[in-house]
Amino acid sequence: MMRVVHTVAELHKILLPYWRKGDPIGFAPTMGALHDGHCSLLRQSRADHNALTIASIFVNPLQFGPGEDYDEYPRDLQNDVKIAREAGADLVFAPSVAEMYPRGFVTFVDMEKLTERLCGAHRPGHFKGVLTVVFKLFAVVRPNHAYFGQKDYQQSVIIQRMITDLNLDVKMHIMPIIREPDGLAMSSRNAYLGTKHRQEALVLHQALDRAKELIGGGEKNVKKLQAEVRRLIGAVKGAKLDYVSIVHPETLEDVNDVSGKTVVLVAARFGKTRLIDNVIVD
Amino acid sequence: MMRVVHTVAELHKILLPYWRKGDPIGFAPTMGALHDGHCSLLRQSRADHNALTIASIFVNPLQFGPGEDYDEYPRDLQNDVKIAREAGADLVFAPSVAEMYPRGFVTFVDMEKLTERLCGAHRPGHFKGVLTVVFKLFAVVRPNHAYFGQKDYQQSVIIQRMITDLNLDVKMHIMPIIREPDGLAMSSRNAYLGTKHRQEALVLHQALDRAKELIGGGEKNVKKLQAEVRRLIGAVKGAKLDYVSIVHPETLEDVNDVSGKTVVLVAARFGKTRLIDNVIVD
Repeated sequence: MMRVVHTVAELHKILLPYWRKGDPIGFAPTMGALHDGHCSLLRQSRADHNALTIASIFVNPLQFGPGEDYDEYPRDLQNDVKIAREAGADLVFAPSVAEMYPRGFVTFVDMEKLTERLCGAHRPGHFKGVLTVVFKLFAVVRPNHAYFGQKDYQQSVIIQRMITDLNLDVKMHIMPIIREPDGLAMSSRNAYLGTKHRQEALVLHQALDRAKELIGGGEKNVKKLQAEVRRLIGAVKGAKLDYVSIVHPETLEDVNDVSGKTVVLVAARFGKTRLIDNVIVD
Repeated sequence: MMRVVHTVAELHKILLPYWRKGDPIGFAPTMGALHDGHCSLLRQSRADHNALTIASIFVNPLQFGPGEDYDEYPRDLQNDVKIAREAGADLVFAPSVAEMYPRGFVTFVDMEKLTERLCGAHRPGHFKGVLTVVFKLFAVVRPNHAYFGQKDYQQSVIIQRMITDLNLDVKMHIMPIIREPDGLAMSSRNAYLGTKHRQEALVLHQALDRAKELIGGGEKNVKKLQAEVRRLIGAVKGAKLDYVSIVHPETLEDVNDVSGKTVVLVAARFGKTRLIDNVIVD
């Protein structure tokens, strides 16, 4: 029997016995429009023997910039609840915007440096919104284990940094990217893509695969690798590249050459749809 | 037997049984140089039957601006520990700067509006530093009850707002201002004052008393009240006024006239020493 809860007070009442007994809570914060990527987080929480597996479904206005897709973002709570249940969630927390940000709300969690790079440079204020909502969700759920997808690689690094810096007692789990059969990384935003852009978007995964292959073959030169990824994406008419970056896995700083664990990240727009993807190489 | 603890790990080990059992923890965060104002917080925590009363002693570099008194701020841990013990603390948490802000620290708690007014306008970044350190101290202590002094009125409003906005499970207690026999509000910074400035600083309390008296006599006109406070402080040669403000007790917005609960706040410098004081009227 899965429960759907809309208020912090109701959630508090349900969770208090778990907090008291120290029974582990696993938690996956989402914006809904659940796909198999989200499901893999909930399944992992079950597999990790958490006493309770919780998914939150909240389209967080704070992390959308002006002109971004806050209004269009897909919302279908009933369907999401069904998917979450099937993936093993015991509880769905689906608060309203007023429940999360009541009148007079003025407090934020923010971060220097890590939030200014990559997607942060293209979406000012985005990670401030992410940090604030994830912090609040952690505060109301008090999970022992939190599950995030590697697809939002920068987000996962930033949240791990917040956990460390703010002395939060949460263990972070980053789960591998789940892909469609043809390689496209699963994303709620894939639903926006028309047939043409859906086909063109495959280039993100293909270009990353090519970079991985070159690195596997001994290529360490970042400029050459970036040029190759840019060339492949540039060859696709409908793709507008935001960035190709090859960075240190924790500092997210550009590396000079590929040696040790390194992350290759891309972001590109297909029409109005902005997609991201990445690959970790070692 | 009072314990003095310097690391988060050591603190965690001691507090875990209290968290598990739900035994209430009372907490007063301080920057040391303890005086009777601080002691009143610890005594209240004892009186409130907390299972454990904790004082933290940490001169927080983040809340000092460039050119402020971070280096000069009085530090005497041995004496502070003695005072805290006598006031009823069971544990003193005195972390190093490296323990609170390890290499790579980049995360902050910040707030709009409330932090921009009053002292915030004169000390840019100050409340960001206060919010961040108080948040972190809350995260490592996980107090049920937190005790702050009304002397730092704006700080107490801001911390209460953070607690509300970030869903923190802490009850805030604001304790009355403790004064020297001649009326000067107790402050660790009073130790900076030479004989002349010490005498001159009495005007803060006297001017607030006069405002309170006028309000008690029916004066509601904010401009007149401010003018009178300004006149009294202006008559003191060594006093440099930062502000006289008459504000709403929660929004800290200037009120048009005194009706209902209202706070009169002053900040002034005597030589290099910046002092604040306030009075709540109803």
